[in-house]
Amino acid sequence: MRVWLLDGGTLVIDHSQLLWNVNPGIEVRFPVFSVLIEHDDELILFDTGYDKEHTERVLPFELPEQTGEQTIPAQIRRCGFEPSEVTTLVNSHLHFDHCGGNRLLPGVRVVMHERELEQARDHEPFERLGYSDATWDHAQASIETFSGDVELVRGLWLYETPGHSAGHVTLLIHSDRGAPSMLFPVDVALSRAAFEREIQASFHIDPIAGQRSIRRVKELAAEHAAEMYYAHDAEAWSGWKHAPDYYEV
Amino acid sequence: MRVWLLDGGTLVIDHSQLLWNVNPGIEVRFPVFSVLIEHDDELILFDTGYDKEHTERVLPFELPEQTGEQTIPAQIRRCGFEPSEVTTLVNSHLHFDHCGGNRLLPGVRVVMHERELEQARDHEPFERLGYSDATWDHAQASIETFSGDVELVRGLWLYETPGHSAGHVTLLIHSDRGAPSMLFPVDVALSRAAFEREIQASFHIDPIAGQRSIRRVKELAAEHAAEMYYAHDAEAWSGWKHAPDYYEV
Repeated sequence: MRVWLLDGGTLVIDHSQLLWNVNPGIEVRFPVFSVLIEHDDELILFDTGYDKEHTERVLPFELPEQTGEQTIPAQIRRCGFEPSEVTTLVNSHLHFDHCGGNRLLPGVRVVMHERELEQARDHEPFERLGYSDATWDHAQASIETFSGDVELVRGLWLYETPGHSAGHVTLLIHSDRGAPSMLFPVDVALSRAAFEREIQASFHIDPIAGQRSIRRVKELAAEHAAEMYYAHDAEAWSGWKHAPDYYEV
Repeated sequence: MRVWLLDGGTLVIDHSQLLWNVNPGIEVRFPVFSVLIEHDDELILFDTGYDKEHTERVLPFELPEQTGEQTIPAQIRRCGFEPSEVTTLVNSHLHFDHCGGNRLLPGVRVVMHERELEQARDHEPFERLGYSDATWDHAQASIETFSGDVELVRGLWLYETPGHSAGHVTLLIHSDRGAPSMLFPVDVALSRAAFEREIQASFHIDPIAGQRSIRRVKELAAEHAAEMYYAHDAEAWSGWKHAPDYYEV
C-alpha cells in the first residue's frame, strides 16, 4: 500500500479547546489533513478537511489558511490521480474540518459509522458548529454505514472510538510487509500532548466515552506497534512526509 | 421561611469555561454563595462555598478572593445563628466551590444525591479539579443520600438536574404565602446569560443530560413562576439581598 498525507491548510483554536479546560487564552494554529491510500484496485480517501469558504463564513474565528494547492482535488492530483479515481471515501466523523471536501467528489461511495450519520443529521445544540457544514449530505451522495469495528479492505481497519462525536472512528493501516503500521486517532485526542496526557478536546458529546476511546487507541497502538499520526499537531505534522511524498506500508 | 444568601467570596475562570467554548481568552470574576433557610424547627444550609486555602493550593489560577467575613461560620453568625444550630446541610453537588465549608460543620446531618456521592468518590480523570477538595468526606460526616426528586421539608424541593455533575440537584423554595418562589439552578447554567442561551459550563460529565437539565429548570421556573438565583453571576448577585438581609418566602 502507498499512503499519502494530504495537506488541507490550517486553523486556529484556543489551547483549552485543543486540550479541554487546559490553559485558556492561548491561540494555537494547527494543521488539518486527509489520508489517501492506494490499495490493490482501490483508491481510498480518509476525510476531506475543511471548506475554506464555509469556515470563513461560519467559523471566521478559526482563521482558516488554505491555498488552492491545499484543497482536496489539488492534493489528489499532486499524488498522480484524478479525484474521480477515488473509489471509496471514508469519514472519521462529520465535523466541518473532516468532511468539507466531500462535495467535491460527488459520485463517490461514502462510508461512515451509522451513529455518526444519525447524529450529524439530528445533533445536540452544543454540536452546532462542529456539524455546521452539511454539504456532505447532498442528493448525489452515496452513503453506506457500518457499525462495530470493520476491516474495510485487507489491512485497513476502522475502530469505533466515540466520545468526541457519536460515531467517530480511528483508522489503522496494518502492514503485511513488516513496515510500521500507521494509526490515525483523528479527534480522539488532537495532538501528541493531548494523547499522552489523555485529555480530549473541549468539543465532545460524551466525555466518559471519549476517555475510554483514548485508552482504546493506546491499546491498539501497543497491540500493533503502530506509529501515531495525530490529526491536529503542528509539530508532529512537520516531521512527516507530505504528498506527493508517501509511505509504503 | 426566611432565606439568606451567604457571600462566599469570588473566583475567576475563563469565559469559555463559564459558557462552554464561547469566547476563550476573557477572564471573568464571579461570586460564590450558599443559602441558609430557617424553616419551622429546621435550619438548613444549601452548599458551603470554597475553602480558600485549598483553592490557593490546588487551583491558584482561579484567583480566590475571600475575607474572613466570607467564610461559612462568619456568614451563619451574621444571620444570628451559631454554625452548630444548622440541622441539615444539603450539597447541590460536591465540586470544590460548593462543599469547601462542609468540614466546618463536622457533626451536622449532610444530605446529597446518591449518584453524587458515588461519583465524587470515584470520578473521571477530567473531573479531578472539580472534586479536588474531598474534605467533606471526613470521619464525623453523617451523610444521607437520596434519589429521585425529593421534598426535603415542606416547600423545599430538590430536583435531579444531572450533567454538570452526576448527581447535581436544583433547589426550589416554594412559598406558601404568595411570595415568589426561589429557584437555584446552581451549576446547571452558571449565569443568566448561560441559562437564557442554554449553554452549560465547560465542566461537565454528561453534556446531553446537561442540556436536558437546562430545559428542565426552564420548565420548573415557568411552572412555579419562580425567581431565578444564578450561582455564579456577578451582575445578578449585585441585585440581590445579601446576609444579614433576607427574603421572606
